[in-house]
Amino acid sequence: MKNKINIAIVGLGQIGSYLLNELTIRKKNIKLLTGKDINIVAVSAKNKNKKRKFKINKKIFYKNPLKIIDKNKIDILFECIGLSDGISKKVVEKALKNYIHVITPNKALISKHGDYLSNIAERKKVNLEFEASVGGGIPILRTIKEGLSTNRITKVYGILNGTCNYLLSEMDRTNDNFKNVLKKAQTLGYAEPGNPKLDINGYDTLAKVRILSSLAFKKKISKNELLMEGIENIESKDFEIANQLNLKIKLLGITEILNNKLFERVHPCLVRKNSYIGNVNGAMNAIILDGNPVGQSILQGEGAGPGPTSSALMSDLLSILRGNIKNPLGVSSSKRKYISAFNVNNYENSLYLRFEVKDKPGVLSEITKHLAKNKISIQRLIQIPDNKLKTASIVIITHKTKQLNSDNCLKSLKKNKKILKRPVLLRLFN
Amino acid sequence: MKNKINIAIVGLGQIGSYLLNELTIRKKNIKLLTGKDINIVAVSAKNKNKKRKFKINKKIFYKNPLKIIDKNKIDILFECIGLSDGISKKVVEKALKNYIHVITPNKALISKHGDYLSNIAERKKVNLEFEASVGGGIPILRTIKEGLSTNRITKVYGILNGTCNYLLSEMDRTNDNFKNVLKKAQTLGYAEPGNPKLDINGYDTLAKVRILSSLAFKKKISKNELLMEGIENIESKDFEIANQLNLKIKLLGITEILNNKLFERVHPCLVRKNSYIGNVNGAMNAIILDGNPVGQSILQGEGAGPGPTSSALMSDLLSILRGNIKNPLGVSSSKRKYISAFNVNNYENSLYLRFEVKDKPGVLSEITKHLAKNKISIQRLIQIPDNKLKTASIVIITHKTKQLNSDNCLKSLKKNKKILKRPVLLRLFN
Repeated sequence: MKNKINIAIVGLGQIGSYLLNELTIRKKNIKLLTGKDINIVAVSAKNKNKKRKFKINKKIFYKNPLKIIDKNKIDILFECIGLSDGISKKVVEKALKNYIHVITPNKALISKHGDYLSNIAERKKVNLEFEASVGGGIPILRTIKEGLSTNRITKVYGILNGTCNYLLSEMDRTNDNFKNVLKKAQTLGYAEPGNPKLDINGYDTLAKVRILSSLAFKKKISKNELLMEGIENIESKDFEIANQLNLKIKLLGITEILNNKLFERVHPCLVRKNSYIGNVNGAMNAIILDGNPVGQSILQGEGAGPGPTSSALMSDLLSILRGNIKNPLGVSSSKRKYISAFNVNNYENSLYLRFEVKDKPGVLSEITKHLAKNKISIQRLIQIPDNKLKTASIVIITHKTKQLNSDNCLKSLKKNKKILKRPVLLRLFN
Repeated sequence: MKNKINIAIVGLGQIGSYLLNELTIRKKNIKLLTGKDINIVAVSAKNKNKKRKFKINKKIFYKNPLKIIDKNKIDILFECIGLSDGISKKVVEKALKNYIHVITPNKALISKHGDYLSNIAERKKVNLEFEASVGGGIPILRTIKEGLSTNRITKVYGILNGTCNYLLSEMDRTNDNFKNVLKKAQTLGYAEPGNPKLDINGYDTLAKVRILSSLAFKKKISKNELLMEGIENIESKDFEIANQLNLKIKLLGITEILNNKLFERVHPCLVRKNSYIGNVNGAMNAIILDGNPVGQSILQGEGAGPGPTSSALMSDLLSILRGNIKNPLGVSSSKRKYISAFNVNNYENSLYLRFEVKDKPGVLSEITKHLAKNKISIQRLIQIPDNKLKTASIVIITHKTKQLNSDNCLKSLKKNKKILKRPVLLRLFN
């Protein structure tokens, strides 16, 4: 690799403009570490004149990012737009095809098109790096690809979305409701001001789980249908009850090999209060890996925000500047296969079910009848009446229950008019 | 790098023989990940016929490891003897000078001669890798060198010795004394059966701290005199009192930049019971880094034992097989400087002091007089009488106290005949 490196940044939102500043102030440091002189020769964003925290040189500004590739000799391109398709995909594709290394924090793009793009990168012998796409500043992908590379990993799970973890921690801490806590998170910058849906419904975590699976198990990125449940239905009374049971509520992303099948899932979990994962609070991310021979490894750090993301982007940059051409997903595309999905219907787990019901005789017996019919046995039952509203919360902790049975049971209870709301279902972590 | 790689292993103790087996069973996996065929062409140990858990091929056995280099075309050599000097140093030196890559888990060697050996490796353009020297299976060195490479790290600390952490956790859990818990640890393989002194007195942690400092702050490995205190004087009553104060006792290794000076230290610390580090128990290791812009990062995993160590050794092997020639200490030797030591006399900290005294009038007033004379002010005092022995434990938690003052105070109390034992000094973590 030559000594003068031309860099382009596409997308100047929060991440892109922070990165631009970091590259400028750490230019000397990068030279010290790698011997390379970096120069930012092109930037691109929708709006040239938008107010940004960091200055941009308007002489190198492009409205159309694809033109950057035509008009400049670029060595490395940062894609910081963040779409799963559209211009994000186009610009990455075009860059790789033109022998340009690409660095991106875009999990939506990688989880959807990572195999396709890796294949291009491998053919063109350039790097496609995306450390920032999972776990923010935590170098989890590099740890799997390099630090733990010869381990047989059997399970990876953790808190992968800082927004959800902040919301759950705050609801637990303050006893405030979801709506208020979300508003606070948006003000503080922990949640998207416009549409935080993709964080809250689990989709963001899911994209990260797919990338982790591929790396940990050395397989193609799965396109399987899978279990995805968000945190939008959790209420403060769930935290109260969890507390009584010595549990905490966390949104976990989990991937593991079960009976030689891939089981990926995202859902809120009840974890023990004194467990490690139960004590990861606020916007923190944490990832736990079970591997052989290494045993259990834990990585924790700030999972989002421009600082941590930029740290990961810079580590990708340094990896490229040191001149290593690597397979983007660890093992070359031709050697990774698809792995079939574990049938979620067979998933057995203890459940926490909360029903909001009219406080009338017979309700509990109707619910327990349906449970019994679907072979769901009860481990613990808590009934909390609300005398003012003449309603009650019925919380049931079940023994291990098949997903299919709990689905059927909740379906059969749907039409019951004494049940006032969609029941809350949380899973106990085991 | 060519496709057939010749490997030698020097030292076939617990680590070396486990590694030998791992390399054999993971040969295919290594080929998949790197395209390289590895062959173990020579092994060396003191005793050819010693009973080992894994079989060795006696046809490739050498008694003198230096002869391996003369008689074979070796590409990569594993040094698993573990001495800080002597044959460990000689064989590594000779290998590097003969353009052979070296991988070692030997922290004693690296913390003492790492700069000298790195210099040879850099000149000969080969790798010297030592991921396993710190944190066992936790890829902490790679994380600092690569994952967090452009961050400005200001502090690194953690639990770096699994033996001590096991002993402290067990004393806390069982209320048993040091001697018994040590015996149990030796039976279970958590402590050296022969001479566990280097673990217990903090020396092992210190060697790791020196390696971490060099990497985190991009400086030469320090040869500074520094604060090193072990866990040998801690008694079960210290755990009882710590518990009452909502604290836990942990042996921490800490390195930080204070007023542009390097402050490295190893000593038992009182940490908050509900803190992250307070909940790392058993033989686990954990490392916490404060960096900018990444924020705080935590890595936790099994810190010792052949499985985790072998995982780290294999990651070094893969890094070499992928063909990356890297500076062993991240930045080239010529660009790393020595950094002068923070004067430990000026270190200010809250202390926990426990005095075992004769239960006679005037003792407490004598102690407090000496404290006052040395400008040590008391935050909290606990007196626990032992009516049978007519003795008492006096525990004092001080306000922030200069190291020089506490040293002087303890020295001046040394001759006092009413004080029955050497006082226990623990530091509160802040």
